[in-house]
Amino acid sequence: MRIVTYKLNNSAADYRMGFMRGDKVVDLGKATEYMQAQLKQPERTFICPADPVSFYQGGLLNFELAKKVEQFYQAKHLNEYSFSRHDVKLGPPVTRPEKIICIGTNYRDHVKEMKSEVPQHPVLFAKFINALIGPDDEIVKSKKTTKLDYEVELVIVMGAQATDVAETDALNYIAGYTIGNDISARDLQKRTPQWLQGKSLDRSTPIGPWLVTADELVDPGHLKLTSKVNGYERQSGNTNQLIFNIPYLISFISSLMTLEPGDIILTGTPDGVGFAQNPPTFLQVGDEVELEIEGIGLLKNKIIE
Amino acid sequence: MRIVTYKLNNSAADYRMGFMRGDKVVDLGKATEYMQAQLKQPERTFICPADPVSFYQGGLLNFELAKKVEQFYQAKHLNEYSFSRHDVKLGPPVTRPEKIICIGTNYRDHVKEMKSEVPQHPVLFAKFINALIGPDDEIVKSKKTTKLDYEVELVIVMGAQATDVAETDALNYIAGYTIGNDISARDLQKRTPQWLQGKSLDRSTPIGPWLVTADELVDPGHLKLTSKVNGYERQSGNTNQLIFNIPYLISFISSLMTLEPGDIILTGTPDGVGFAQNPPTFLQVGDEVELEIEGIGLLKNKIIE
Repeated sequence: MRIVTYKLNNSAADYRMGFMRGDKVVDLGKATEYMQAQLKQPERTFICPADPVSFYQGGLLNFELAKKVEQFYQAKHLNEYSFSRHDVKLGPPVTRPEKIICIGTNYRDHVKEMKSEVPQHPVLFAKFINALIGPDDEIVKSKKTTKLDYEVELVIVMGAQATDVAETDALNYIAGYTIGNDISARDLQKRTPQWLQGKSLDRSTPIGPWLVTADELVDPGHLKLTSKVNGYERQSGNTNQLIFNIPYLISFISSLMTLEPGDIILTGTPDGVGFAQNPPTFLQVGDEVELEIEGIGLLKNKIIE
Repeated sequence: MRIVTYKLNNSAADYRMGFMRGDKVVDLGKATEYMQAQLKQPERTFICPADPVSFYQGGLLNFELAKKVEQFYQAKHLNEYSFSRHDVKLGPPVTRPEKIICIGTNYRDHVKEMKSEVPQHPVLFAKFINALIGPDDEIVKSKKTTKLDYEVELVIVMGAQATDVAETDALNYIAGYTIGNDISARDLQKRTPQWLQGKSLDRSTPIGPWLVTADELVDPGHLKLTSKVNGYERQSGNTNQLIFNIPYLISFISSLMTLEPGDIILTGTPDGVGFAQNPPTFLQVGDEVELEIEGIGLLKNKIIE
């Protein structure tokens, strides 16, 4: 199932939860009400929150409810409360995660190209919500940087509160996966020992286009991922090359800090970033970055001033 | 004015906004209603949100309203809706900041003792909400660390949205100040190049005991700050030794990322941390850490398992 947040084009309203049905976007809250009316269920047998913050707070339970609604729509060939993709704007699948955790230097060839050392432990750093944008947004190139860079990454979206989770149990805490562009201003990232200031520029970090639920990605540890700039391939890797794989990351992080539903983890990027091109090639206003991950889809964003 | 969050002892309710009147805690929402009734103002002439998230979202406007209520209480010698300090538990003055930004190596003598380099630009790193606790909480020593350390810091609490703010204008965006203990697990902090994993352990980072509004701290750039462990002084500094001062920090950070009301900035710590003692002396279960900043107060927390 593909979960989205959306609003009608040019609407000033907040994003609402939805799901993809073919290439249409169905409003999750309205669809739930409609299903209940059809089934003649008493009102509020269950509610599936329309707003993203409440939806994620409910965690995996809400994903189960959403699944029921989707299955009902599919079985009955329904199209009620659905919108053409062109009539809506998709937001980041999670709009207000409590934590945005990024894993640095987690692919061996990227470690090499960055002249870093292979880490003995996962390298964790943060972004804040000010950075987060969706698949239909443009990446803003701040005037503070001349070295803006792309990084294609598989993004984990947590579905349940997780403290001290065992590796063998880790996948049960995940709601799903999406694509993330860990946009990095290399000049700002590297001018102090801590990367945060180059990693959390306003409106710099797109995720999307949707969350693919965990049940549909049978093996997230074996997905091809690529990036292109203006149509030319730059990165090509596979999540089977992760130094620290998904169960390990969940277990490791949750032993240090409690993860909450809706928290997102960007798992690291393979080699081929702009910084390591010869000569280095950074993103310019007007460039278009396309990220693709097998089983998830395509995340395409333009760079603007 | 001293702003707090509080709940009645052993209450399972959420923290509510309050203010200190002498050594009593007055409920801000109830006090507002009471004042309006006394003044025979039509209901909801203004509302001062009782819950901390709404209060901070409203930014400086809500601080102005709170001030009016406090002044009314003071002028009339009122004690309505006030609780003895012993009957309540204080929470962190801001319970859910969108960002917790910390400044590393921002006092020269601390730079030296950490064998770091004097930074050319402020060093920014993050904590997450899972770390945040209040003045009446205990600091949890995770089993993952044997090198838990204290750091007394002046904490800025933002009062207004800030993007690209000039240094000369920076203080106008600040709601007030509090004390923070930037608890750091040195072993975890230093085992990878990025500090986050040693800085955001669950329930590790107290702030409080209250927010002192900016109007009452005439010169935040000239405040004595000290730390003691079990009564013995460890750190003693003055915010006039900050390498990057408060206006510079606000201007610098807001040029990179938009600050929101309620965002907090821990401004760095002077020398004397446990890591730099000879021999290094880390926090143990049962230890008591007392932080004091001139014009703000005392933040005292015990270490538990």
